[in-house]
Amino acid sequence: MRIISGGVCAPKGFLAAGINCGIKKSKKKDLALIYSQVPAVACGVFTANTFKAAAVRLSKKNLAASSAQAVIINSGNANCFTGTYGLIYAQRMAQAAAKALALRKHNVLVASTGIIAKPLPIENIEKALPELIKSLSKKGNLSAAEAILTTDKFTKEIAAQIKIGPSLVNIGAMAKGAGMISPKMSTMLCVITTDALITAQALKYALKAAVGNSFNNVTVDGCMSTNDTVFILANGLSKNPCISLRDKNFPLFSAALNYACLEMAKSIVRDAEGATKFIEINVEGASNNAVAREIGLSVANSNLFKTAVYGESPNWGRIIAAVGSLGLKVKEEDIKIKFSSFRQKNVKIDISLRMGRAGCKVYTSDLTPEYVKINAAYS
Amino acid sequence: MRIISGGVCAPKGFLAAGINCGIKKSKKKDLALIYSQVPAVACGVFTANTFKAAAVRLSKKNLAASSAQAVIINSGNANCFTGTYGLIYAQRMAQAAAKALALRKHNVLVASTGIIAKPLPIENIEKALPELIKSLSKKGNLSAAEAILTTDKFTKEIAAQIKIGPSLVNIGAMAKGAGMISPKMSTMLCVITTDALITAQALKYALKAAVGNSFNNVTVDGCMSTNDTVFILANGLSKNPCISLRDKNFPLFSAALNYACLEMAKSIVRDAEGATKFIEINVEGASNNAVAREIGLSVANSNLFKTAVYGESPNWGRIIAAVGSLGLKVKEEDIKIKFSSFRQKNVKIDISLRMGRAGCKVYTSDLTPEYVKINAAYS
Repeated sequence: MRIISGGVCAPKGFLAAGINCGIKKSKKKDLALIYSQVPAVACGVFTANTFKAAAVRLSKKNLAASSAQAVIINSGNANCFTGTYGLIYAQRMAQAAAKALALRKHNVLVASTGIIAKPLPIENIEKALPELIKSLSKKGNLSAAEAILTTDKFTKEIAAQIKIGPSLVNIGAMAKGAGMISPKMSTMLCVITTDALITAQALKYALKAAVGNSFNNVTVDGCMSTNDTVFILANGLSKNPCISLRDKNFPLFSAALNYACLEMAKSIVRDAEGATKFIEINVEGASNNAVAREIGLSVANSNLFKTAVYGESPNWGRIIAAVGSLGLKVKEEDIKIKFSSFRQKNVKIDISLRMGRAGCKVYTSDLTPEYVKINAAYS
Repeated sequence: MRIISGGVCAPKGFLAAGINCGIKKSKKKDLALIYSQVPAVACGVFTANTFKAAAVRLSKKNLAASSAQAVIINSGNANCFTGTYGLIYAQRMAQAAAKALALRKHNVLVASTGIIAKPLPIENIEKALPELIKSLSKKGNLSAAEAILTTDKFTKEIAAQIKIGPSLVNIGAMAKGAGMISPKMSTMLCVITTDALITAQALKYALKAAVGNSFNNVTVDGCMSTNDTVFILANGLSKNPCISLRDKNFPLFSAALNYACLEMAKSIVRDAEGATKFIEINVEGASNNAVAREIGLSVANSNLFKTAVYGESPNWGRIIAAVGSLGLKVKEEDIKIKFSSFRQKNVKIDISLRMGRAGCKVYTSDLTPEYVKINAAYS
């Protein structure tokens, strides 16, 4: 596997664009478009929140046939808990893009991110579409990555290349996220593109596994979003021997996808609101992977642990209390905790148990006065 | 019911004392003793944390016969995750008190609160015992209430009087707690005294119910302690007709105990580390009480909700996201949210659902830069 540049535009046949359409009053970019020149096999993973944003509900429906050719995303407004109008606006957003791109409307996927429970300024989006489409280019990946940000301080992009048979296959991704990060069976906003030729079944399986090993193992504040979405579009333009679930090349593709998702997930944690530290919690010796993840997330979501890391005070009793709060049957003598210096920017915590052989790596940030200030002022 | 003064010394036959024995270097009081002049029926409710402090494990054992005559409590050190020595030290603490008071050692209950995973300076406690016992008095309640505090800014005491048959029955309580507050099936440190004559069965039942309606419905930071403990001692000196579980006076006693526990629980939230707000979350229309509590606590533990209250920014999308994160089957149109102004010190949130008739009141505080600073520096 080779790391390459180009983000979501790295795979063949993908164009992207990002502009400001007036949702963000700061004039920062707030509308992104990713377009594949040919129809792509596509799937998604979404938030488990009861109150799913309109875009999430619409995109789930549009993915019924496992195909898509474009993704339109706005930032600055989540279009969530916005009733019947919310859904109508999400549909209008997809329709406007479909019409301008001469696609069927269910071939357009939609995502929104930003404040919850405010009406989406749909006219702004509709008016901006001609300009957005005119801006589509092979170099539009950075603009698109910018246009999906909210409280993020930096864009999040990755691209990788692997060899499948005689063909070079590219995977690109962009993501956003800095707060309200605690995905469950789902993730934050992330669009992944690939020119791999792959069956819908294999693509779904690979995406679910990659999300499980990446976005589902990060937390900033333990708060689950209503808008979490990952899309993947595979347009087959690399003309590799088609990857199916039992194919010998599937693990190769899957590993590259895992890598891209994990880089995006870690990038979200590095950009965590107000954070001064990047924390890796490595759980080993758990009875199964789910328990290992639960232990890692319990520590990662403990405000007292997070403030201790911020204070560079290795108060490991708080790690113990967080592990213990799960009520698991573990004896004191069967848990060992090791940690690197809290004075570094990167902090590593090793928690080893004598329950079994399963493990999990969880990533999180510290809790700082700045996090509180950012979120006290956000509206 | 009448509110009276005297805290844990309000009931007949109870004496208390609080001194500094050198665990806290600040010279603040750190050792408390509550003593009943006659043996008392007693029970307790404890943390559900896997890693229970030594004092919790010892006190559970000592309560096997449902009787006790004294409670000794140190602050400044939790004596938790301290291995075999931790348990030996807790035993030495009980034994020293038992010897000095001429009691059997299992008639002394023990509690510890403070930093986790540091050796308890047991010699300080043993040396201080003669002075502690000499200080026991009918006016010692405030000193004892002071001696159990850690990051608390004020003492927490309550006392109430009810009439049972021809007798005046008194209930007194003291508590501590300001951080690491998210009890589950348990509570923070609280000692309740009463001169009621009551069976052990009725006392246990009343305590469990009162804790369920009070301490279990508060949260400061979603972090569960390893040392949560509530003790109640009933010495029977008011000579009321003995209260049994099916007695007509049981609800009367139970209501007074509920009141005392709820006042202590609210007092902990009012003293929450760094807090500027006292928040009541009132959930109605839930399918059952457990779901109502889960909804209330999900909102109360949302860092984003708590920072919004701190910022006086009524960002109610965060309430929606927190309710939705539980994954319950609720439609958008079946949830209604009302709230008082966020500019007041006391904030009230009403969440009404159309799932059923159950409800719950949950109490919490805001998340502030000061909370982070306090806990970044605590060691």
